[in-house]
Amino acid sequence: MPVTLPTPDTLDALNTCEPAAFVAAIGEVFEHAPWVAAAVAGLRPFADAQSLHQAMMRAVADKSEDERVALFCGHPELAGEAARSQRMTADSQQEQGTLGLAELDGDSAAQWDELNRRYRDRFGFPFILCIKRHTLASALQVFAQRLAHDRADELEATLQEIGRITRLRLGQRIRDHALPELHGQLTTHVLDIGRGQPAEGLHIELFEVARDGRAAPGAPALARFVTDRHGSSERPLLHGQPLRIGRYEMRFHVGDYFRAQGLAQGPWPYLDIVPVVFAIQQSEADYHVPLTITPWAYGTYRGQ
Amino acid sequence: MPVTLPTPDTLDALNTCEPAAFVAAIGEVFEHAPWVAAAVAGLRPFADAQSLHQAMMRAVADKSEDERVALFCGHPELAGEAARSQRMTADSQQEQGTLGLAELDGDSAAQWDELNRRYRDRFGFPFILCIKRHTLASALQVFAQRLAHDRADELEATLQEIGRITRLRLGQRIRDHALPELHGQLTTHVLDIGRGQPAEGLHIELFEVARDGRAAPGAPALARFVTDRHGSSERPLLHGQPLRIGRYEMRFHVGDYFRAQGLAQGPWPYLDIVPVVFAIQQSEADYHVPLTITPWAYGTYRGQ
Amino acid sequence: MPVTLPTPDTLDALNTCEPAAFVAAIGEVFEHAPWVAAAVAGLRPFADAQSLHQAMMRAVADKSEDERVALFCGHPELAGEAARSQRMTADSQQEQGTLGLAELDGDSAAQWDELNRRYRDRFGFPFILCIKRHTLASALQVFAQRLAHDRADELEATLQEIGRITRLRLGQRIRDHALPELHGQLTTHVLDIGRGQPAEGLHIELFEVARDGRAAPGAPALARFVTDRHGSSERPLLHGQPLRIGRYEMRFHVGDYFRAQGLAQGPWPYLDIVPVVFAIQQSEADYHVPLTITPWAYGTYRGQ
Amino acid sequence: MPVTLPTPDTLDALNTCEPAAFVAAIGEVFEHAPWVAAAVAGLRPFADAQSLHQAMMRAVADKSEDERVALFCGHPELAGEAARSQRMTADSQQEQGTLGLAELDGDSAAQWDELNRRYRDRFGFPFILCIKRHTLASALQVFAQRLAHDRADELEATLQEIGRITRLRLGQRIRDHALPELHGQLTTHVLDIGRGQPAEGLHIELFEVARDGRAAPGAPALARFVTDRHGSSERPLLHGQPLRIGRYEMRFHVGDYFRAQGLAQGPWPYLDIVPVVFAIQQSEADYHVPLTITPWAYGTYRGQ
Repeated sequence: MPVTLPTPDTLDALNTCEPAAFVAAIGEVFEHAPWVAAAVAGLRPFADAQSLHQAMMRAVADKSEDERVALFCGHPELAGEAARSQRMTADSQQEQGTLGLAELDGDSAAQWDELNRRYRDRFGFPFILCIKRHTLASALQVFAQRLAHDRADELEATLQEIGRITRLRLGQRIRDHALPELHGQLTTHVLDIGRGQPAEGLHIELFEVARDGRAAPGAPALARFVTDRHGSSERPLLHGQPLRIGRYEMRFHVGDYFRAQGLAQGPWPYLDIVPVVFAIQQSEADYHVPLTITPWAYGTYRGQ
Repeated sequence: MPVTLPTPDTLDALNTCEPAAFVAAIGEVFEHAPWVAAAVAGLRPFADAQSLHQAMMRAVADKSEDERVALFCGHPELAGEAARSQRMTADSQQEQGTLGLAELDGDSAAQWDELNRRYRDRFGFPFILCIKRHTLASALQVFAQRLAHDRADELEATLQEIGRITRLRLGQRIRDHALPELHGQLTTHVLDIGRGQPAEGLHIELFEVARDGRAAPGAPALARFVTDRHGSSERPLLHGQPLRIGRYEMRFHVGDYFRAQGLAQGPWPYLDIVPVVFAIQQSEADYHVPLTITPWAYGTYRGQ
Repeated sequence: MPVTLPTPDTLDALNTCEPAAFVAAIGEVFEHAPWVAAAVAGLRPFADAQSLHQAMMRAVADKSEDERVALFCGHPELAGEAARSQRMTADSQQEQGTLGLAELDGDSAAQWDELNRRYRDRFGFPFILCIKRHTLASALQVFAQRLAHDRADELEATLQEIGRITRLRLGQRIRDHALPELHGQLTTHVLDIGRGQPAEGLHIELFEVARDGRAAPGAPALARFVTDRHGSSERPLLHGQPLRIGRYEMRFHVGDYFRAQGLAQGPWPYLDIVPVVFAIQQSEADYHVPLTITPWAYGTYRGQ
Repeated sequence: MPVTLPTPDTLDALNTCEPAAFVAAIGEVFEHAPWVAAAVAGLRPFADAQSLHQAMMRAVADKSEDERVALFCGHPELAGEAARSQRMTADSQQEQGTLGLAELDGDSAAQWDELNRRYRDRFGFPFILCIKRHTLASALQVFAQRLAHDRADELEATLQEIGRITRLRLGQRIRDHALPELHGQLTTHVLDIGRGQPAEGLHIELFEVARDGRAAPGAPALARFVTDRHGSSERPLLHGQPLRIGRYEMRFHVGDYFRAQGLAQGPWPYLDIVPVVFAIQQSEADYHVPLTITPWAYGTYRGQ
């Protein structure tokens, strides 16, 4: 069942509509808490999307701890029972859906259930994470880390995650004003330094891999493309979203590239598929992962 | 049951002993063909091991095609019934044993049986390969290639392989005269170019991998070591044998190395385990696979 | 005395004006040969600047050899007497002026006089070169090379140079339609691979150097700048002109850069001013000369 | 007039000879101070050259400050009047001679005279430096630095330099026991990473250069050689001496190398003579300055 989100408005429309329409339009930005939108309706007009979001975050921060915890409790658990039975807001469905959290198999589901239970026992509200910034591996790593927090730190961490979630949600509802640092991107570039030219026609694949850099057998590629005459992909490999924190493998098919030039022969060219394994730890940053190649050497670095 | 090979002699001892003792000492260098040793006993003394080997190869080359084919037929099939029931010369047992050809599981054994059968049908003698120069992957790749040969090419290819097998066997029987280009070696070196110093204390593992560079799940490391103060292993990773043609992965644990220096933090350092995947295609060559590293960049090339 | 060139027109203005105005506007594109413009006035309108230039070149090519040689003879010698006494068209003054050909000292002037004399003796017309594409060193090198041509090759080479000269001149007279591949550019980028970030605040100088890579003592820098937060210069180091064929040195002040970070100490840091010496051989190409650095290592390659 | 030093002895001969012969053999190790040798003659035998040197240094350190200053005053000034009129011990002549300090032209001589005068006025003894560890540039830089010392620091610095001078002198007098960390060496290695092989037959020159990396016009090469089949020089470029602190340029003639392979054409190959400019700041260390090359890219780092 496809998830339907409201059509984005212009900032001007949001600034000038009736308060009720304003709350209808962005009331679900804060999960089950249209009161946040209502609280800032009287502060309009906002100069930009960023100011609107900051006002909403202030409205939450101004509440008492009990009221904030009540807000937290309106959120579904990650990979929890609500997720699996699809009883969540459209936003939450979309967010958790991207990571497959609604379709975990038995063992994984049990692991999440156990974490969720321990977390709720410890803090009295559900574990909230801006899941669009995470791979499963990093979500689990953060979960373990936050379980060890004391209550004050965890209240703050939760509010920060709600800030991230709601910035992304708000960004989807305003079509003419971008929030800053909302997304990251991953790009690459291959230079054939034996010829002093961009490597054109070279196949590249991107995979998510385990923390030890090994690929899960049968895992699908996140992206596949052939370099253009600039040695790059036409569009970034990942973009228009936060980057998911985790470890990745870019596989550069340099053997085929040099074979086509007559510079690699036989079944055992020294270099064939060159793996570059790297981590993304900043969701809203630019990661440029270039490769310089010859049939016998290569180098890579993080660029921006 | 451990395989026992004769104690190596000195070249001088081989040059001066009775002909019968000479044939006893090196008669099994050519599989089931002590006549080759006998044919050269009268040509002694030999100036070096290389000259002795060349004389033996000439003795074979001087024979008629039928006699050479008879020599070929004295060899056991690779991974064949004789191998699995351990009815081979000690040399052949040792050679095939290193690649696990005597212990293949059902499917693989059936694949080899089929290849052996097709080969014998086509050429009238068993497929002979200097197995110490191959991984399973390259042995199968060569097998397929040689099945497509015409008879003249295959007679020549077989003689060349017997030359390789017998050079290694002869090398094991003479303790004071090395044959040239008998072995290869694999070395590495890690330089920390952020500090201008060898990287000391960095863990490295070596694995054989599939042609696409992926490691077989659970495959054991061929070598494991921690770099010394020169950024190297004390001894070569592979040495004292021909290198097996195939694809390899060297895994450099740079994340731990930089973590110990305070230059990598958290669970997602940009670089953690850096894989370098390369092929060895020359069994008797030196492969030097160095790595230059910073926490954000690395490069490698084939050196010698 | 400043050289004044006519104000550029729009292509539309050139396409629709009276023939006499058309010839007045672009008659000097071909040195002392307004007949070329007149010959194509009736072929208007032209779809773009490139088509106009091609039509003018065809008008020249359609002439007899004698008429083409007469056109050649209308050109001033490079660094010749006309240049030194400033009796040239405004275009020629500007072109030769950029290379200092009008102000050579005695020895150099004598060398050019001798080359010009030998050339004119051999071919019967002056040596013509699109001087904006050359350094003095490459101009002299081409001069020697072309003196060795036979007449047929040299007639062709001269026409090709006139094509290059006139494309640039026409490009200056049409302000709204660019000719393709008219200019080249030189850019750089410095990446600090010890930090995985662009190197900001690093001083760079560009010099022309002799063919052996040595700088002439006291020669002024062609460009000087400090890298911005992207590790680059805001604008290309060279652009908006053809690149002059020759050898260049880019000097990267990495010692000061690392000193500011506390990563270089004392008067003898391992790397201080890093010279990268390279040749430009294609005037209309893009040369990207990046540098990756640590305090102890660097690398560079030609990018595009 | 060639400088003659005594023939080196064995440590055993020095340990067992008459005290007078011992003093005759090594009395000049400390300039005009045979009493140092005499003071340790009774402590023989010494286990190694290092122990002998340490005992001599202790004999000096045990003296009063006045006696040490008297020892200092026995040393000739660097580039001073005694040097220019060749009234120095054979050791001093050899040491100062290697840097051309006895043959400075008028301006430089005046600069040294002025520094020597200011130093002697300030401290009451001559400026002492182990000149074999310095280029002229670093000697002058240290001179300026030490002029700013207070007396206590300078007494210590002077004793340290005498330690360095005498270790080298002692090392020349004992032929069978090396002192540790007496010398440094400079090596290089060129790898052609477009072919995965050492670059054989590549010309390399080594020059001392100014602190800004520019070569002095007409300065002679310190070393010149052609790489062997390992891509190296047969022997280190510098060795068997301390390395002189200063800045150096290694010039790699990669243009000719690639021209011979047909990979560089014409007068303007992108790379021709590649300069690598680096400083040596540790006289007794190993500097390995390798180069990886293609016709369009190169990299270098400090190795060891």
